[in-house]
Amino acid sequence: MNLLVAHGGGPTAVINTSLQGVVETARKSGKFEHIYAGRFGIEGIMKKDLIDLNAFTDEEIAKLAHTPASAIGSCRRKLKDEDYPSIIDCVKEYGIDCFFYNGGNDSMDTCNKVNEMAKKEGLDLRVIGIPKTMDNDLMITDHCPGYGSAARYAALNAAELALDAAGLPIHVVVLELMGRNAGWVTAAGAWASRITKTEVLTYLPEIPVDIDKMMADVKAAYEKGKGCLVIVSEGIKDLNGDPIADTGIVDGFGHKIPGGAAQRVSDLIMEKTGIKSRCEKPGLLGRTSILYSSPIDREEAYAVGKYAVEKALEGVSGYMVAIKADRAAKYGYELFLAPLDQVANEEKKFPLEWIVDGNRISDAFFDYAKPLMGDIDVNYAFLRGE
Amino acid sequence: MNLLVAHGGGPTAVINTSLQGVVETARKSGKFEHIYAGRFGIEGIMKKDLIDLNAFTDEEIAKLAHTPASAIGSCRRKLKDEDYPSIIDCVKEYGIDCFFYNGGNDSMDTCNKVNEMAKKEGLDLRVIGIPKTMDNDLMITDHCPGYGSAARYAALNAAELALDAAGLPIHVVVLELMGRNAGWVTAAGAWASRITKTEVLTYLPEIPVDIDKMMADVKAAYEKGKGCLVIVSEGIKDLNGDPIADTGIVDGFGHKIPGGAAQRVSDLIMEKTGIKSRCEKPGLLGRTSILYSSPIDREEAYAVGKYAVEKALEGVSGYMVAIKADRAAKYGYELFLAPLDQVANEEKKFPLEWIVDGNRISDAFFDYAKPLMGDIDVNYAFLRGE
Repeated sequence: MNLLVAHGGGPTAVINTSLQGVVETARKSGKFEHIYAGRFGIEGIMKKDLIDLNAFTDEEIAKLAHTPASAIGSCRRKLKDEDYPSIIDCVKEYGIDCFFYNGGNDSMDTCNKVNEMAKKEGLDLRVIGIPKTMDNDLMITDHCPGYGSAARYAALNAAELALDAAGLPIHVVVLELMGRNAGWVTAAGAWASRITKTEVLTYLPEIPVDIDKMMADVKAAYEKGKGCLVIVSEGIKDLNGDPIADTGIVDGFGHKIPGGAAQRVSDLIMEKTGIKSRCEKPGLLGRTSILYSSPIDREEAYAVGKYAVEKALEGVSGYMVAIKADRAAKYGYELFLAPLDQVANEEKKFPLEWIVDGNRISDAFFDYAKPLMGDIDVNYAFLRGE
Repeated sequence: MNLLVAHGGGPTAVINTSLQGVVETARKSGKFEHIYAGRFGIEGIMKKDLIDLNAFTDEEIAKLAHTPASAIGSCRRKLKDEDYPSIIDCVKEYGIDCFFYNGGNDSMDTCNKVNEMAKKEGLDLRVIGIPKTMDNDLMITDHCPGYGSAARYAALNAAELALDAAGLPIHVVVLELMGRNAGWVTAAGAWASRITKTEVLTYLPEIPVDIDKMMADVKAAYEKGKGCLVIVSEGIKDLNGDPIADTGIVDGFGHKIPGGAAQRVSDLIMEKTGIKSRCEKPGLLGRTSILYSSPIDREEAYAVGKYAVEKALEGVSGYMVAIKADRAAKYGYELFLAPLDQVANEEKKFPLEWIVDGNRISDAFFDYAKPLMGDIDVNYAFLRGE
């Protein structure tokens, strides 16, 4: 048999680990003559520009576990109906039996359509989606590989920044975190309020921001004298539903890319409260960092790749691998299959009941997210007292 | 005897480790009855607001090694002549015999003046400066504790970002790094060009930027199709010598704080070349991250604190601890004393001969800086070929 795997959308810190899971499982099975990857995602497949992964040793493949970004390349492209025949052509030309597409909501839509078209053409192609998104907004699955690492990055970096804001309290510090329309990553930043004494205000895109109230809250928090960290999602909106700031850029899927929210909020703080403010925006660094990645996230990313190959070998097609989590005692997980048409194009929003008073995050969120982040119970020396 | 230690200016990832070196060495010597710290730096001393470090166990002090920011607090304040008497008052009231001030150029000026005034008052006060600045711009010392960690952060984060820019080549990525008027930290980002195939252009504040040439270079680099990362120092200036962007804020020492350089360059790229661009600005995260800190930097940060106490016990006063590096074979270092009046208020600039064609960094820089960063020879899987 022949296998084809590709990446879609923004890479996470563990996307290459899912690729490693696919390749190593396929090799171990002994069932595959050729293992191909789409060079730069679905666009490579459309151009019949494939990478022959047989050219790489086991040692090279093992390095994927600590390689950031996408080692085979990715793209952002919302496919049109007329694009699909070129994909089917490639599948036929290379005699592909199993197709794995590793991505988020939009990629699962692509995956679903490839499956349907292959069926229509009478091909015996097994199509399985491998979940991946730091945004954590895929339906049905408890969470998405890539999220735990992005959340760990947010939690630990927000905590470190909160300490800086408190140790040199000459300004408010505003931190912008990613996640598009979903607050999952930004909420993790609120961990800073659990392990530092700094005042932490957290704003997610799910609740429109009342700027006047925000400014009053920032002023009150800063005046407590323990430092003030304001965490904003890149996608926060004002009371009219307009983005606080956007880049003016539209991505390949037609989404307007937000950006500059922290700068805007920082400028407003200086203008409206007179308090000095500065902002930080790690941006893509929040999804590329290998050092801040979560061990359990990496384990699951490998497992979903492995499971996809195992299920394809059993003849399954038209599903995405999903995760069922058990948080009863020690964290555990199981994998299962979710129909592609139920996850395609849907977005799982952050539960509103986990946002308290518009700018604090409840413990219920951390009950959910903490096991996914690995150990974040850092224990700092704090010698200043209250 | 009684000891007083304080932090000045922006904390580094290892500033608390120098504090740990001071406190543990002082405790081990058995010579000190009281070990005090200024709460929030020199401002705490002026207000006689000291932290009694005897209140903390050895275990708590040991945690300083992995505590970000300043555990005793810091401030940014350029002292005036009329401020010094309050410092001398505090020294007298608490019976201080040894005073250690951990900071950069401005802090060494403070330190020098405290030493002179104490002499004038006939006090037997031993005053020793402990070097600290991520900017790496202190004179005489080969390098400054805090720099190796900030450089390591810059090198590894730029490399991770370069891979993201190349793996999803839908935009140019602009990364802003800190360092005020000195390019030491930003130059470390050029490491990305050594361990990835991505095109990397690096702009330091030492060479005024010709915007038209920059745009042409970015366009040419992006069009090679291997991804393009543009690294800019927060302090880059245009051909007129004006900052590319500043925050409009003036710090406590009267320095105009630069900021927004990456956003400005990113906007210019979109406007002038038509290529999509985005920017990232980790900002303070580049000096707070414990995970990205350099082991050798941490070792040296401890050593300079320890050495300061040892020399003070020998009766030395009026010096800053400095580092002599030996890069002949395996990296090694020795400590020595530099007169405070020779380091105060001076800035060590990045050597212009290490900047090639305005936007590349020569190997000579990495011969100097690489040993300070710890292991940065990461080995990534790269499966896309050329």
